Amino acid sequence: MEQRKDKTPLSEAVLEQVTDLLGRHSLVEALAQRQDVPRQGLVEGLIHKLHWVELQKKLDALHPADVAYILEALPLDQRLIVWDLVKADRDGEILLEVSDAVRETLIEHMDGDELVAATENLDTDEIADLAPDLPREVIQDVFRSLSPEEREQLRSAMSYPEGTVGALMDFDMISIRDDITIEVVLRYLRRLDEMPDHTDQLFVVDRAGRLKGLLPVNRLLVTGPETVVTAVMQTEFTRFRPGEKAHDAAQAFERYDLVSAAVVNDESGRLIGRMTVNTVMDYIREETDSDRLSAGGLRGEEDLFASVWKSVKNRWTWLAVNLVTAFIASRVIGLFEGSISKLVALAALMPIVAGISGNSGNQTITMIVRALAVGQITAANARKLFVKEIGVSVLNGLIWGGVVGLFAFLIYHNWQLGVVMTGAMALSLLLAAVMGVAIPLTLQKLGRDPALGASVMITATTDSGGFFIFLGLATIFLV
Amino acid sequence: MEQRKDKTPLSEAVLEQVTDLLGRHSLVEALAQRQDVPRQGLVEGLIHKLHWVELQKKLDALHPADVAYILEALPLDQRLIVWDLVKADRDGEILLEVSDAVRETLIEHMDGDELVAATENLDTDEIADLAPDLPREVIQDVFRSLSPEEREQLRSAMSYPEGTVGALMDFDMISIRDDITIEVVLRYLRRLDEMPDHTDQLFVVDRAGRLKGLLPVNRLLVTGPETVVTAVMQTEFTRFRPGEKAHDAAQAFERYDLVSAAVVNDESGRLIGRMTVNTVMDYIREETDSDRLSAGGLRGEEDLFASVWKSVKNRWTWLAVNLVTAFIASRVIGLFEGSISKLVALAALMPIVAGISGNSGNQTITMIVRALAVGQITAANARKLFVKEIGVSVLNGLIWGGVVGLFAFLIYHNWQLGVVMTGAMALSLLLAAVMGVAIPLTLQKLGRDPALGASVMITATTDSGGFFIFLGLATIFLV
Repeated sequence: MEQRKDKTPLSEAVLEQVTDLLGRHSLVEALAQRQDVPRQGLVEGLIHKLHWVELQKKLDALHPADVAYILEALPLDQRLIVWDLVKADRDGEILLEVSDAVRETLIEHMDGDELVAATENLDTDEIADLAPDLPREVIQDVFRSLSPEEREQLRSAMSYPEGTVGALMDFDMISIRDDITIEVVLRYLRRLDEMPDHTDQLFVVDRAGRLKGLLPVNRLLVTGPETVVTAVMQTEFTRFRPGEKAHDAAQAFERYDLVSAAVVNDESGRLIGRMTVNTVMDYIREETDSDRLSAGGLRGEEDLFASVWKSVKNRWTWLAVNLVTAFIASRVIGLFEGSISKLVALAALMPIVAGISGNSGNQTITMIVRALAVGQITAANARKLFVKEIGVSVLNGLIWGGVVGLFAFLIYHNWQLGVVMTGAMALSLLLAAVMGVAIPLTLQKLGRDPALGASVMITATTDSGGFFIFLGLATIFLV
Repeated sequence: MEQRKDKTPLSEAVLEQVTDLLGRHSLVEALAQRQDVPRQGLVEGLIHKLHWVELQKKLDALHPADVAYILEALPLDQRLIVWDLVKADRDGEILLEVSDAVRETLIEHMDGDELVAATENLDTDEIADLAPDLPREVIQDVFRSLSPEEREQLRSAMSYPEGTVGALMDFDMISIRDDITIEVVLRYLRRLDEMPDHTDQLFVVDRAGRLKGLLPVNRLLVTGPETVVTAVMQTEFTRFRPGEKAHDAAQAFERYDLVSAAVVNDESGRLIGRMTVNTVMDYIREETDSDRLSAGGLRGEEDLFASVWKSVKNRWTWLAVNLVTAFIASRVIGLFEGSISKLVALAALMPIVAGISGNSGNQTITMIVRALAVGQITAANARKLFVKEIGVSVLNGLIWGGVVGLFAFLIYHNWQLGVVMTGAMALSLLLAAVMGVAIPLTLQKLGRDPALGASVMITATTDSGGFFIFLGLATIFLV
């Protein structure tokens, strides 16, 4: 159904062909606009059309995710040409697959009717995913086109904030009653045209819709037809509440190798939806992606071909924060201008101390943030970690401090300078270790994301701190 | 089967209880060693035993992944106590779940017989996963205990290098012939005690074992019993070769929402194994994890409670590389010591230029590496990206250059210094943009991982380059 015959990934190859076709197209179009050779223009119009048809055929054969990939890799003008060639009834599923930034550019170029039509082939949970990007009137039109049951689902799906189980669940589950036999179940299933994707289990509910157990499809197939569902259903299983953190649910999917899981109402225990592994994979991808972006100082995902102005705004915050910390470090150096003017070697050596301790602090932070993310740090072992990191920094201080001290001595033939350099290095590494453990733990305790900002804070600390320690020691002992 | 009744994640709570029990245990043990009060000792011995039993019960009730999580979060001494309490027949599955670093510590404390016994409940593909960490004699013993067919599978699984589809595949697939009816298939399945996990489809093969199609279980269930398999099987589907990159296969799983996929022999087209979504999720997790670790300057994953010496070694390479780049930057500054001694403000201002352009360069790299990872950069759009990033840097240069210029003027009341600062900032940001695009693209062209080392290289460039540009301009115009 949604699978391809060829070896993956072929989308890269198709992308090359598409760019190639589009390139030829632009050429043809440019030629066609030169109205002076009408007959040739006609021939080219034909070629142009042929390309069109060829391209459209290729796009029709592709999985929506592959079309999304191609749209994301194309500059805006070419992207819109391809988007126009995509059959209207596939618009919805492709909009679901593209990144938020690219989705915005596509929706901007669609009118209300097109958008309403795009949602026609989507499930309610999918419409809920698109909803934040759709104009208000479009949502109202879509809402009117739904059945009462679907409206209820859409309302429910849209009511849960991003990052919760409720926002990721779908309603494509098959539920059965517990007092029927396997034969009845099989007959019931055979009446369906097809089963929803990722149906690895049926949900067993009682009269009131409360979830009683699971009947894995694999167990269904190996069980005799006369057996009653209650006799073979699983009664111990993972279930989620809609308000739970999606992050925790994703962790459960990873740990317990789930394909689908039930979402039940908190109080009543009624089955209200399910989560599936493909949604979880997408969620994990987005989560790690946004971690990586924010670690790299980008506020959000950036369309590869976003305008210069949009990109500047996306990178603004981070640069501004860094500017402030750089100004502070600069003022710390300013305090010691007297010493530097007396011993100018200090200016050349000070970035070494700040740089190495910054790197060392970032290593500690990486370790701690990772351990925090999987919940491996408890009150009991935090102290042990502190002690360990301090041990590492002392050892590193002796080793690397020795190396930089030797370097300073070899360049400047001043052994006192070398000793100060070693001492400054050891102290800054100690500072980096202490702050490298303390910063993420404190952020966590304050209920904030330890991955966000920890790296900026450690760099700020080790920069200003490193300069201060080195120049301070030098002022005391050398100047 | 492998699911739990409770709401996830409960492992954090169990971890607290385990540490608590272990804590009490140590106390009891310490008391018991004071031999002067024999009667009290007896009572405590009993309490001690009770704790033991309580802890063991808790562990037995946990999923292997949860036990693994607890083992990873405990310091070495407590980890080994818990490991001894785990039932021997669960050793294998738990070893599969723990991180490489922790697995090493556990295997170190097991003798040959225990290790051979641990593999007894494992499939051949799982044994292959453990094999690199097992002593040679153990592998030979395990090998002898296998059936000829299993030996062949183990050999095959071990023959593919890490990072290929072959290394991730398993052999738990159900294959059927294409000329039988659905009824025969159902009867065949009913004879099995249970079906392998993640069986969302049966593999249809011909007489020679060549893969002809797929019969999704969901389709099997909605099809009438007298239909022949060929009539309902899917003939268009994703299949992998064992030598293919695991990264590409994982991308296909994500894009096409697969649960399982066939692995076929390159030449003969014979079905040799399958890949499942849970393995893919683990692979993706490991991949992003090792990306994050190397971005943070750690060579490999580090046991949270690794010895200080092991940790130092793990962080060694990165610090050494950074030391070299810092030395180079220091020598660049050294070239301008004359200028600095004449205008000491330069020393205080130079880290600002280097710092901001380093950050800006890293933002560009983050963007480019991300786009490269999903294959969105082609020869055709690379130039557009260059132009865009240069645009961003020019705009940033004017804005941030202006701000730092103003800052320099306000602090030092020297407008020439402000102008030089602005110019240096603009030029360094331009350098950062050009290198930020060029470095990852070049690494990619050389067939290397653009994520690895790109960040070190950009920082080295912007540090030395930033110092050189700023101090050079200052020397020309100010000194």
